[in-house]
Amino acid sequence: MTKQTAYQQLCEHFKHLSKLSHLNSICGWDQATMMPDGGNQARAEALAELAVIIHEKSTRPEMEEWLQQAAQQNLNPMQQASLREMTRSWRNQTALPADLVKAKSLATAHCEHAWRDQRGANDWKAFQVNLQAVMQLAIEEAQIRADKTGLNPYDAMLDLYEPGMQMQRLDKVFGELQSWLPELITQVVAKQANWPTLSLNGPFPSEQQKELGLAVMEKLQFNFKHGRLDVSAHPFCGGVPSDVRITTRYEDEDFTRSLMGIVHETGHARYEQNLPLDYLDLPVGQARSMGIHESQSLFFEMQLGRSQAFVEQLLPLVNQHLCQQQPMQLEELKQHYLSVKPGYIRVDADELTYPAHVMLRYELERDLINQDIKVADIPELWDQKMQQYLGLSTKGNYRDGCMQDVHWPAGLIGYFPSYSLGAMYAAQFHAALVKAKPDTPQAVAKGNYDEVFAWLQQNIWSQASIYETDELVSRATGETLNTRYFEQHLRNRYL
Amino acid sequence: MTKQTAYQQLCEHFKHLSKLSHLNSICGWDQATMMPDGGNQARAEALAELAVIIHEKSTRPEMEEWLQQAAQQNLNPMQQASLREMTRSWRNQTALPADLVKAKSLATAHCEHAWRDQRGANDWKAFQVNLQAVMQLAIEEAQIRADKTGLNPYDAMLDLYEPGMQMQRLDKVFGELQSWLPELITQVVAKQANWPTLSLNGPFPSEQQKELGLAVMEKLQFNFKHGRLDVSAHPFCGGVPSDVRITTRYEDEDFTRSLMGIVHETGHARYEQNLPLDYLDLPVGQARSMGIHESQSLFFEMQLGRSQAFVEQLLPLVNQHLCQQQPMQLEELKQHYLSVKPGYIRVDADELTYPAHVMLRYELERDLINQDIKVADIPELWDQKMQQYLGLSTKGNYRDGCMQDVHWPAGLIGYFPSYSLGAMYAAQFHAALVKAKPDTPQAVAKGNYDEVFAWLQQNIWSQASIYETDELVSRATGETLNTRYFEQHLRNRYL
Repeated sequence: MTKQTAYQQLCEHFKHLSKLSHLNSICGWDQATMMPDGGNQARAEALAELAVIIHEKSTRPEMEEWLQQAAQQNLNPMQQASLREMTRSWRNQTALPADLVKAKSLATAHCEHAWRDQRGANDWKAFQVNLQAVMQLAIEEAQIRADKTGLNPYDAMLDLYEPGMQMQRLDKVFGELQSWLPELITQVVAKQANWPTLSLNGPFPSEQQKELGLAVMEKLQFNFKHGRLDVSAHPFCGGVPSDVRITTRYEDEDFTRSLMGIVHETGHARYEQNLPLDYLDLPVGQARSMGIHESQSLFFEMQLGRSQAFVEQLLPLVNQHLCQQQPMQLEELKQHYLSVKPGYIRVDADELTYPAHVMLRYELERDLINQDIKVADIPELWDQKMQQYLGLSTKGNYRDGCMQDVHWPAGLIGYFPSYSLGAMYAAQFHAALVKAKPDTPQAVAKGNYDEVFAWLQQNIWSQASIYETDELVSRATGETLNTRYFEQHLRNRYL
Repeated sequence: MTKQTAYQQLCEHFKHLSKLSHLNSICGWDQATMMPDGGNQARAEALAELAVIIHEKSTRPEMEEWLQQAAQQNLNPMQQASLREMTRSWRNQTALPADLVKAKSLATAHCEHAWRDQRGANDWKAFQVNLQAVMQLAIEEAQIRADKTGLNPYDAMLDLYEPGMQMQRLDKVFGELQSWLPELITQVVAKQANWPTLSLNGPFPSEQQKELGLAVMEKLQFNFKHGRLDVSAHPFCGGVPSDVRITTRYEDEDFTRSLMGIVHETGHARYEQNLPLDYLDLPVGQARSMGIHESQSLFFEMQLGRSQAFVEQLLPLVNQHLCQQQPMQLEELKQHYLSVKPGYIRVDADELTYPAHVMLRYELERDLINQDIKVADIPELWDQKMQQYLGLSTKGNYRDGCMQDVHWPAGLIGYFPSYSLGAMYAAQFHAALVKAKPDTPQAVAKGNYDEVFAWLQQNIWSQASIYETDELVSRATGETLNTRYFEQHLRNRYL
C-alpha cells in the first residue's frame, strides 16, 4: 500500500468523524421525536459517551502535524478549500482545555434545566445566579478562542456559527436596520389597523394538517427518498444529508403557523439534500454557516412562502385538506401570513418585527462578552430596548422578556445574529435571482419553481463550504451582504 | 483516587460497551421503522463504523488480564455471576480471528443479498454456491469456538444463543417431540376437519388496528413510558430496556396475525422492561438467552394469548375497534387462533406444527456442522422430513422449502432451536405458575393478570442472567426442561 499523504489522512479522519456524527444526529432526532420520557437517562448517557469518543478522535495528537504537513502539499483549489475547513473545524473543536469544556457543560446543563421552571415562575433572581456562571465561562471561552484565532473575543464566538462575520460589520448592519426599522414597523401597524380580526374555523385534526404539510413539501420538491416529516416540541431540521428529518408541531386551532413552519424547515432540508455528494463526509461539503442555512429556510418561508403567488397556490390545498366545509378566502389567508404586530416573544414574531428582537439580543450579548455590561443589567436594558424598537415594556415581566430564550442558558453566544443575517441574505439572493431571471415571478405565479430551485442549487446548495461566506454571496449576487435588499423587500411587501 | 480492582475495571468496560450498544439498537430500530430508502447507505456505513469501535473496545488487550485477576478476587455470589457472564460475553466476542470475521461478514452479506432474488426465482443452484461458502465458514467458526470452549462444534454455536444447551440434550428433546407430535397433528387436523371456512369482513384500516393493538398492550401492562409500538416489514422487539421498541405489520384484510404478533412482542418487551435496573449495563443484567426470551413472548402469545379466557377478553376490544358494524362471535375469533393446518412456511405456522419446522432445521444444521451431510443434500432431506413430519412434499419447491429462511444465509447457525425451546419453557412456566397459584385461571378469566405477571417478574424477569438457564428453570419450576408440559398443554388445548 502506498503511504497516504497528510491530506489523505485528514480525509480519512474526517470521514470517520462524519459516521459518528451520523449516529449522533439520528439518536438526537429520535430523542426529540420518538423517544418516550423514560428513555431519556440512558439516551443522555449514550450520547455523552459518543461525545467523548468524538472528542478523543478530534483531539488526537497527529492532527496538528497532518494539518501542517498538508498545508505544504501541492493541493488543487478544491483541496485547499477542504483543508481550510478542516483546519477551522479542528481549531473550533480543540480550542478549549478539557476542564473548561467540562465546567461549561455542567454550568449550562444546570442553568438550562433550572430555567425551565424559573421562567414559568418569573424568577429572575434565581436565574441570574446561574446565568452569571454561564456567562463567566463564556467570557473565558471567548478570550481563549480569541487568543487562538487572533480575532476579538466576541468575533471568535461569532466564528463558531457565522465564520468570517465580525462585530464591526454587525454593528454597521444592525445600525442600518435601526435607522429605518422601528419607523417602518409603526407605519405598517398603522396601515393594518383597519384589518378585520382574524379567526379560524378549527379544530384542524393533526392527521389532516400533516397531509397538507406533505403536499406542500412535495410542491417544494422535498425528496422523500431522503427524508421525512415528524412532530417535535420545538421544530427543527435534523438527520443527515442523505436522510433529512424535519419536524413541526400541530396546533388544533391554528394550522397556519405549523404550515409555514414546514415551508421553513423544507428550505433547510433542501439545502442539506442538495449538498454535493462527493464531499458529504468532509467539512468542505457541509452547509456554509448558520446564517446561510437560515437564508435558505427564510428564502422558502419569507421570499417564496409569503409571496402573493405562493399563498394563491396554497389556498386550494388548504381548502382541500382542512376547510372543505367553509372554504377560506385568499385575502383571509394572506392576512394571516402578512399581519404585523409587535409582541414580546421572538419565536412568535412576524417577518417585520423579528429583526428587532435579534438586534436587541445581539447588542446585549456583545456587550456582555466585552464586559461593558453585567448580567445584572440585562432586565433594565431589555426593557429600554423593547420600548425603543417595539414600543413594549417588559418591566418586571422576565418570563416574556429576558428569560424567554434557551440560547444563553445553553451557552450559545454569537448565535442570534444568524437569524437576521439569514433574512438579509435571503432578500439579497431573491433580488439577484429576479435580476438574473426576470420572468421568475411569472413562473412562480403559475406554480413553476424550477428556475428558483435551479438558481439556489447552482449558487448556494452545490457550493457547500467551498467558498468563505463573503465570496459565496459575491459570486451569487455580485456583492457582499447589503441590507438594502432586505429593506426594499419589506417596504415592497408591507407598505 | 483509590486504584480500581480488576472487577471494577471490567464493570467500567462493560458499561461503556453498553452505551455504544444503545446507539446501535436505536439506529438499527430506526433503519427498520423510520428510515427512508435513500438513507440506507450512509446508515450502513455509520453502523459499520460503530461495529469497528465496539470490536476494538471488546478486544482490548487488558481484558484477558482483568478477567484472570477478577477470578482471583474475593467476589460475592452476584459478582461471581456477573464475572461469569462477562467472561462468556468476552469469549464469544473475541473467539474468532479478524480475517474469519471479515470473510464471514462478506460471505453472509453476499449470500443474504443474492438470496432475496434467488428465493423469488426458486433458484437453488445459484443459492447453493453461496450457501456452501457461508456453511464452510460456519464449520470453521464452530471448530474454533469448540477449541476455545471445550465444547463440541455445534454446541459451541448453540452456546451463542442458548448458553449451556447441547446437541445431546436437543436430540433427546426433539426425539421426544418426534414420538408424539406428527400423530397429534394428524389427530387435530381430523378433529378440525368440519370447522367452517374462516373469513373476515375487512378491510381493517391500519390506524384502527393500531388503536386495538395499543389497547391490548395496555391490558398486558406494557409500560409506555419506557417503550413504543411501530411498523416494520419484519416484526421485532428492539431498543433498550429503558426504551423498548416493538413493531408489527398490519394487513388490510386480516387483523388477527398482527394482533397476536403484538401480544408476542409485548412478551419480549415486558421481559426487557423488567430486567433489574441495577445491572442493566452489565452482561449479568441482560436477558438469559434466546430460548428464555422466546419463552416470554410465547408465554404471552400461546399460554396466555390463545387461551379461552384471553380470547374472551379480546373479543369486545376487537368488536369495539374493528367490527362495530358486524360484530365477531367468540367461536369465530377462537377458531382463527386455534386453527391447525400443516403448511410449508415456518413463520406462518400455527402453535402445533411450528415445532416440526424447527425440528427439521435443527437436524439439518446439526448434521451440516458435523459434516455428516453436505449443502447439496439439503433439498432432498428437506422434502423427506416435511413428508415425515407434516405430510407435505417440497420437491422442486425450494422457495417454500429450504430457501424460505434468512437465518442460514445470514450465518445464524444454532439459532433455530431457541424457538421451540421457548415454547417448551413457556408451557413449563405456565404449569408451575398454576401449581403455585391454583386460582390463577379464575383470575385470568376475569381479566386480572396480576398474579401471572408477579410470577414472571419474580421467577424470570428479575433474574436476568444471574443463574445459568438450567438453574433459572429449576428455581422457577422445580425441575430442568421437561417436554411433558408442552405435550400436555397441546393435548389439552387441541384434542
